[in-house]
Amino acid sequence: MSETAVLALDWGTTRLRAFRMAEDGSVLERRDAPAGIRAIDDGDFEDAFHTIIGDWLPPAGADAPLIILGGMIGSRQGWFEAPYIPCPADPESLADHAIAARTESGHALWIAPGLSLSQDGRADVMRGEELQIFGALAQLGPGRHLLCLPGTHSKWAWLEDGIIKDFRTYMTGELFDVLRRHSILGATIEHAVWSDAGFEKGLAAVRSDAGLLAHLFTVRAGALLETLPVDETGSFLSGLLIGSEVASAVRDLAPGSEVCIIGNPDLTDLCTRAVTQHGIRCRQLGEYTGAHGLFRLAEGLRTRR
Amino acid sequence: MSETAVLALDWGTTRLRAFRMAEDGSVLERRDAPAGIRAIDDGDFEDAFHTIIGDWLPPAGADAPLIILGGMIGSRQGWFEAPYIPCPADPESLADHAIAARTESGHALWIAPGLSLSQDGRADVMRGEELQIFGALAQLGPGRHLLCLPGTHSKWAWLEDGIIKDFRTYMTGELFDVLRRHSILGATIEHAVWSDAGFEKGLAAVRSDAGLLAHLFTVRAGALLETLPVDETGSFLSGLLIGSEVASAVRDLAPGSEVCIIGNPDLTDLCTRAVTQHGIRCRQLGEYTGAHGLFRLAEGLRTRR
Repeated sequence: MSETAVLALDWGTTRLRAFRMAEDGSVLERRDAPAGIRAIDDGDFEDAFHTIIGDWLPPAGADAPLIILGGMIGSRQGWFEAPYIPCPADPESLADHAIAARTESGHALWIAPGLSLSQDGRADVMRGEELQIFGALAQLGPGRHLLCLPGTHSKWAWLEDGIIKDFRTYMTGELFDVLRRHSILGATIEHAVWSDAGFEKGLAAVRSDAGLLAHLFTVRAGALLETLPVDETGSFLSGLLIGSEVASAVRDLAPGSEVCIIGNPDLTDLCTRAVTQHGIRCRQLGEYTGAHGLFRLAEGLRTRR
Repeated sequence: MSETAVLALDWGTTRLRAFRMAEDGSVLERRDAPAGIRAIDDGDFEDAFHTIIGDWLPPAGADAPLIILGGMIGSRQGWFEAPYIPCPADPESLADHAIAARTESGHALWIAPGLSLSQDGRADVMRGEELQIFGALAQLGPGRHLLCLPGTHSKWAWLEDGIIKDFRTYMTGELFDVLRRHSILGATIEHAVWSDAGFEKGLAAVRSDAGLLAHLFTVRAGALLETLPVDETGSFLSGLLIGSEVASAVRDLAPGSEVCIIGNPDLTDLCTRAVTQHGIRCRQLGEYTGAHGLFRLAEGLRTRR
């Protein structure tokens, strides 16, 4: 393992992704476990850390690789709290504000900060997605790019010459989940299967200017009046929500513009369908780019050691 | 009790409101119980009916008043199912489609239908609110009126010369509730008190064209970054939701137009604040007008007996 230069851990709410990386940033080995911070009993992150990557750690006295942790592990609910730093921010500013910590076993760690934004009465935070965005810099090149990371809390970010200038969170996935589980729409959706037709109907409905709230009840009323097949209700709701998110996020883009998407194809495909309805192109940057973002921070941190 | 002409029951999801009414439509006596259809064990509506208004029923052989039931009692989950009739509709068309039923005790009942709407891929239903709208006809007079009934499922309806032409449901109250109880926003709102400042900030935020989904996460991020006082988070969310509902509902109204509101002052006051921000006047029609609506149906039903 003499070639290991960086151990990078993207430690989120639900998953822990760990990467053993070489001097040139190539990934020598990767591990992925459902050991997100919410799954760690009694906050015993030390134990989880050693369980997942204990065998990657050097013997006492050997040259230690730089160990960098990013994602929700640096939140108040995590292991060591790292601050949010305000936008605009680039990998160097993240590295500048990383927190130095040490495990009980004596290993030195760096904890990446999150990003914050506060303007015009709007407040936002991200912690983890910025690593994926910075991890895509090599693919993106200079200039201005709009990035989309769909999910439970979708993030849309404006990147300009490698600097995150602005971003916004849409609680799209979580809203789908709470409506399905806890609202009157749940009973209607219960036995729905995936339906492209339902999804397209949902996208079409929110193309009107009436807004999301004006359409949600159609999920129930449409099923009741049998104007919306029961099979389609869940996908229709998904179309309403993703369509609303995308309509908001791309509303100032000129037709022919490009949106860059990072994420699981299941989600990015739906997002792409919503985006292209606005005459905007989509470019898929990959399913996961966080390891490269952590490596960029590690490069910035070398000068701080 | 010889003067009793009509027994009118507005039997909803959470409450049962009963009215003993004279020939001229005046209310001789009213009762209000938390005996909505969701509170009736084992669907024993017969028992609840006799418990609440048994002493209003005439002795055998006497002239019986007309008994009319409206609201969710006529839904599939209710006592006797009455259909939804499509808009446009007036009190006479509701009366024409009322269902004749009979209690186990032999009392003849009429069950009011609900209203449905299906156009341009949008579907909607109401059951109960139409009685309140028709109950306000005497106050409204002829012409075109936009009515608002705020609540768990707010209803906005266009009334034209006594005919409901169009309506739309906004799941505003329910959305507040599921977000508060079941989403990540809940922990932030938990200890919030009512705050006018928070409500106004929420209204202001959704005056942008970014849409509701773009602002929800501010409830959490604002509290985290301390740009939104924790005390204000719940009212801020309330402002976001009510502001979104109202912005959608009044979007085609000319400034100086009027919206007529029916409902509990706690809710109608908030709604009024959101409406007046658009330069539109509000007129409060009363807290509850359903008894008069049921009486209008009863008048139509006299010719059917």
